[in-house]
Amino acid sequence: MATETREGTRGSRELTVSIDAMGGDAGPGVVVDALARAVLRHPGVKYIVHGDETELKALFTQKRAKLLEFVTIRHAPERVRMEEKPSLALRRGRNTSMWRALDSVKNKDAEVAVSAGNTGALMAMSMFQLGTIEGISRPAIAALWPTKRGQSVVLDCGANVSVDAEQLVDFAVMGQAFARAILGIERPSVGILNVGTEDMKGHDAVKGAAHILRGSKDLPIEYAGFVEGDDIAEGTVDVVVTDGFTGNVALKTAEGTAKLVTHFLRGALTNSLTGRLGALIASGALKALRRKLDPRAANGGIFLGLDGVVVKSHGGTDELGFASALDMAIDMARSGVIARIVADRQGVQSTVPEAAAS
Amino acid sequence: MATETREGTRGSRELTVSIDAMGGDAGPGVVVDALARAVLRHPGVKYIVHGDETELKALFTQKRAKLLEFVTIRHAPERVRMEEKPSLALRRGRNTSMWRALDSVKNKDAEVAVSAGNTGALMAMSMFQLGTIEGISRPAIAALWPTKRGQSVVLDCGANVSVDAEQLVDFAVMGQAFARAILGIERPSVGILNVGTEDMKGHDAVKGAAHILRGSKDLPIEYAGFVEGDDIAEGTVDVVVTDGFTGNVALKTAEGTAKLVTHFLRGALTNSLTGRLGALIASGALKALRRKLDPRAANGGIFLGLDGVVVKSHGGTDELGFASALDMAIDMARSGVIARIVADRQGVQSTVPEAAAS
Repeated sequence: MATETREGTRGSRELTVSIDAMGGDAGPGVVVDALARAVLRHPGVKYIVHGDETELKALFTQKRAKLLEFVTIRHAPERVRMEEKPSLALRRGRNTSMWRALDSVKNKDAEVAVSAGNTGALMAMSMFQLGTIEGISRPAIAALWPTKRGQSVVLDCGANVSVDAEQLVDFAVMGQAFARAILGIERPSVGILNVGTEDMKGHDAVKGAAHILRGSKDLPIEYAGFVEGDDIAEGTVDVVVTDGFTGNVALKTAEGTAKLVTHFLRGALTNSLTGRLGALIASGALKALRRKLDPRAANGGIFLGLDGVVVKSHGGTDELGFASALDMAIDMARSGVIARIVADRQGVQSTVPEAAAS
Repeated sequence: MATETREGTRGSRELTVSIDAMGGDAGPGVVVDALARAVLRHPGVKYIVHGDETELKALFTQKRAKLLEFVTIRHAPERVRMEEKPSLALRRGRNTSMWRALDSVKNKDAEVAVSAGNTGALMAMSMFQLGTIEGISRPAIAALWPTKRGQSVVLDCGANVSVDAEQLVDFAVMGQAFARAILGIERPSVGILNVGTEDMKGHDAVKGAAHILRGSKDLPIEYAGFVEGDDIAEGTVDVVVTDGFTGNVALKTAEGTAKLVTHFLRGALTNSLTGRLGALIASGALKALRRKLDPRAANGGIFLGLDGVVVKSHGGTDELGFASALDMAIDMARSGVIARIVADRQGVQSTVPEAAAS
């Protein structure tokens, strides 16, 4: 059976979410408004909110006093700045709301931490405080990506600017465990992002990872080979594995492209009388499109590979986006994804020696 | 003054385009139809078409006999297959239509070569036949990218899966020369694609290139620092520099995302009566949008850094797409971009020692 994990030792008490309230660009007001949505959506869940006690108390009592039934405020005198170097934040950051939010998970006061703060600092602190799952060398950031067929998981979206073959294999294991736990896919298909689908394409890390995955027969993975950039939105595979540099650029390029197309659409529909009239009549349909493309609906980069669940909300998000990140955090905490990664990673390790030797 | 280049020695005789007619997935029929458009658009331009003589003669005489006034057919008994390894194609490929198309540029029978064939083979043969511009170690594939502000140049989109800092600097020089020659921007702004805009972000190659570009005061470049994936479509800079792995994934991810958004739009507009009615009334506007997003309009990866102009059309394109690639090839051949790269590269070299030493 799997090694005991922080996740696995919790028993049946109610779920608690630990929140860094001072991390986002917009300040703690967004967090408080998001909590108003979350308590309605998730009965029974409790929240520990870390940040400036005076500011938080004022925010809650002024407009959300009823929330205090579900929320505990814990004072943290400092905050991590957005432009702060992760190494500096790690050294000097023990009194920050981010550190304290992770501390609650470490101390088992909470099952999951959520922050809209500095991604690099959050990753560095998470690794220091929670450690990685046994057998996983580096965590990755996973994102849910809308596709023609529904949703796929893409990782790494920014934690590791360069990776080797073994790390890509780790990402495959973590990604499929996430797809099974959160998307409910029994045997997810996994592809490695590359510049072509032929075996000879790409650099050593993708070729090496493909070699190991092809040889790992015990894994609950349908390894589908290399995929290209356009396969992500096509939904060709359930899990797309890549390094954090490429994944981050791909994610932001997709966001930029979606914005560009809707910009062109708006331009086309306001440019002529018939365009404006048509848009008016089809306004319900266009609103549905806007909801479908709303990046806030899938807000939340998931840190996978840590011995603890951490969700990173987009720094510039509003309460809708932060509420989505809370949804994701609660789903993750209930899914048992860590235990799954531990078990599945053991499945790969047993097959690596043969695969690597061939 | 600049070293003498293949481009620079041509004098004032008419422009000739050399075409690999057997390269694309759709066969030479697409090339013949594209030529019918090109001869109308570009009076005075001549074409040498390489491929199976019998097949080509039949195609022209059956439906496009008038084109033979501008077109010379040259027999090539073989073709490079799409899945063929570049190294193999290079070894065995002297009788292929691709090789022969490049030969015409090498022999100065033509100023530019166009192929819809195997990208890797075309790059390998181009390097072997034409060589690189003095001071440029590896060519790159540049693409024109639609943005909110017009068009930007993105390179490398697939020639080099890994690069060092010096190569990224080469790409910056080539990209800005292209932006000046083709987009008519006097002093293009150049950004390096990265996972964040702060100096500390990214791997050694991007940090090193940033360091060199910041120090290169003589270059006709507005170095704008790091940009992120969403900056491409935003049009934040005129030239986006990246390695061929990231650039290829970004380009295909953008294509996939544009398709996904139009797929969602189509779904939204056909899902309800008001959606369908609105779409009918706004059909002119929606057609304009479709034209704007038509990937055939900007078809053609430009190989930069070679001592000769080579344009790669998308392998699966139709005659509209191939005609766009011919447009690009003719613009390129007339632009004097190679001489510009030679001169500008010398500007960087003179500043590198100080920059690298600091």
